[in-house]
Amino acid sequence: MTGQGIVVADVGGTNTRLGYLAQAGDAPVQTSHFQNADFADFEGCLRQYLGQIGVQGCAQIFIAVAAPIEGDVVTLTNCNWKIDGAALRHFTGAKSIHLLNDLEALALALGHLPATSFAYVAGPRAPHDPKGRKLVIGAGTGFNAACLLQAPSQIVLPAECGHMTLPAQTADDLRLWDHLAKDRGRASVERALSGLGLCETYHWVARELGRFPDALTAQQITDRARLGADLACVKTTQIALRLLAIVAGDLALAYLPHGGIYLAGSVCRALFPMMKQAGFAEQFTAKGRQSTFMTSFPIYLMTDDFAALIGCAGLANSKIIPVAEPAE
Amino acid sequence: MTGQGIVVADVGGTNTRLGYLAQAGDAPVQTSHFQNADFADFEGCLRQYLGQIGVQGCAQIFIAVAAPIEGDVVTLTNCNWKIDGAALRHFTGAKSIHLLNDLEALALALGHLPATSFAYVAGPRAPHDPKGRKLVIGAGTGFNAACLLQAPSQIVLPAECGHMTLPAQTADDLRLWDHLAKDRGRASVERALSGLGLCETYHWVARELGRFPDALTAQQITDRARLGADLACVKTTQIALRLLAIVAGDLALAYLPHGGIYLAGSVCRALFPMMKQAGFAEQFTAKGRQSTFMTSFPIYLMTDDFAALIGCAGLANSKIIPVAEPAE
Repeated sequence: MTGQGIVVADVGGTNTRLGYLAQAGDAPVQTSHFQNADFADFEGCLRQYLGQIGVQGCAQIFIAVAAPIEGDVVTLTNCNWKIDGAALRHFTGAKSIHLLNDLEALALALGHLPATSFAYVAGPRAPHDPKGRKLVIGAGTGFNAACLLQAPSQIVLPAECGHMTLPAQTADDLRLWDHLAKDRGRASVERALSGLGLCETYHWVARELGRFPDALTAQQITDRARLGADLACVKTTQIALRLLAIVAGDLALAYLPHGGIYLAGSVCRALFPMMKQAGFAEQFTAKGRQSTFMTSFPIYLMTDDFAALIGCAGLANSKIIPVAEPAE
Repeated sequence: MTGQGIVVADVGGTNTRLGYLAQAGDAPVQTSHFQNADFADFEGCLRQYLGQIGVQGCAQIFIAVAAPIEGDVVTLTNCNWKIDGAALRHFTGAKSIHLLNDLEALALALGHLPATSFAYVAGPRAPHDPKGRKLVIGAGTGFNAACLLQAPSQIVLPAECGHMTLPAQTADDLRLWDHLAKDRGRASVERALSGLGLCETYHWVARELGRFPDALTAQQITDRARLGADLACVKTTQIALRLLAIVAGDLALAYLPHGGIYLAGSVCRALFPMMKQAGFAEQFTAKGRQSTFMTSFPIYLMTDDFAALIGCAGLANSKIIPVAEPAE
């Protein structure tokens, strides 16, 4: 196969999004959304997409992946796909395959997205320092963050924040922590702040309320909570939002993102309508002597489901250099 | 007053270290150590130092401060000194005063210190990626961290990690958390991992053991623990080392410092002889599915008490640009 275009991909733990650029500098077009479960591997998904848009191959592929990037082969953390750069090169005729972490791609997208791609959450309406560091925090199939430095040069710092310790501040928190840690030795941030995390938290909440939990997806839990009709679902989202606020506040203290905090991913988007009522802003700033300092960070929601593709396209057209991890 | 030299200072919450460079490019000489409590303010301390080394004034001052840096006036977080750039300029005749966070200064020092300034703690003996990010974690009067990026350019990221949430994974942890949170609403990392934190943890441990706590300083607690003679002191340092390992592991997941983790500050130095016995390395890597990944980070202790002055001197002689925080 041959081709001159550029394929951009966002491979999450549950969904894959694909787009196509006729050349660097273009915005992604013919974007499509696929369920990973419908394909044995990424190659099958890409094959279907290329057929669908009537393209034989491509010159370059940029793939944002929900996994740490080390070298040319990536095994997804929350799905059993393996992405093999050499195999993809062979199949598409692409001269270069660029793998990057999905949160890095979201961070790279920040400068390229229109204002309509963001919804205001808390803090100042605009950053005090528009050139300050920006932090993307993503909760979907998994949890992670990435920091964008804008000065003196544009650099994205990848991270593995989903595996940090889940905070516990009360006896209830600790009982949930123990529930999430069962058979795992510990509870990481991702164990609560992800789709599966919402489901596991809901199970714990239902049993705490003396109820038998329904078989609900994360989407159904947040839908029911939004309608206010199901107490266990309401409590589940309140717990998730409180934990998200504590973790986001902790990450703000680590990265000092005076250019803004950007919440992303399906879980953050589903929780967004309940943030105000759950006191998200107050819980984000509740850091003792630093509470006033904490009000200086603007917080937004990234509403564009295809933002990572924009980040990949930006990378295809820029000198932005993600800091490489060592190949081990 | 006039002078051509450069004064470098490291102003902690308890101690101040001062040094002098005849010109940029020199190493600090005539270094001295002062107790903050002996002076009403930093100006008094600097005045005594300049008299002691027989210098009338200086051309530049670089001051590493245990506080967030915003603008030209800094109030120390853990001591009642205020450092006022304009007043210091007036008194010393210095043309420029450069304030930076003390952990930033330690990060800047990393490239200038001899191998004898480090002691091996855990992980690989040498970094897989010597040009990878380096993370300094400091516990002394307070707690904080700073990340040094080496490529594509040298940048230090300041942080306020001491105010992040103290982790609690067990019922015992949570009871200590509650003790440290008393009258404060919450327990930050610094509430345990600092000199005062060791004292407060010791008080809690002694009472848990049904004893009346002695009036001990942090130094006395770690000294007694090292001798193995006092059970409450031994347990206190075990708790501190376990929490330090959890927090350092969490910060490693946030910054991915494949260039190495560098523990600094009086508390880390005092705890160092007990790290092996307390299982510090095992507790650092205990991050579930990421445990193997966690063994890839080399961990060292910074043994040089004057390292921050070396960082200030390096800044005086380099193009290293700490990322500025916005003046608010």
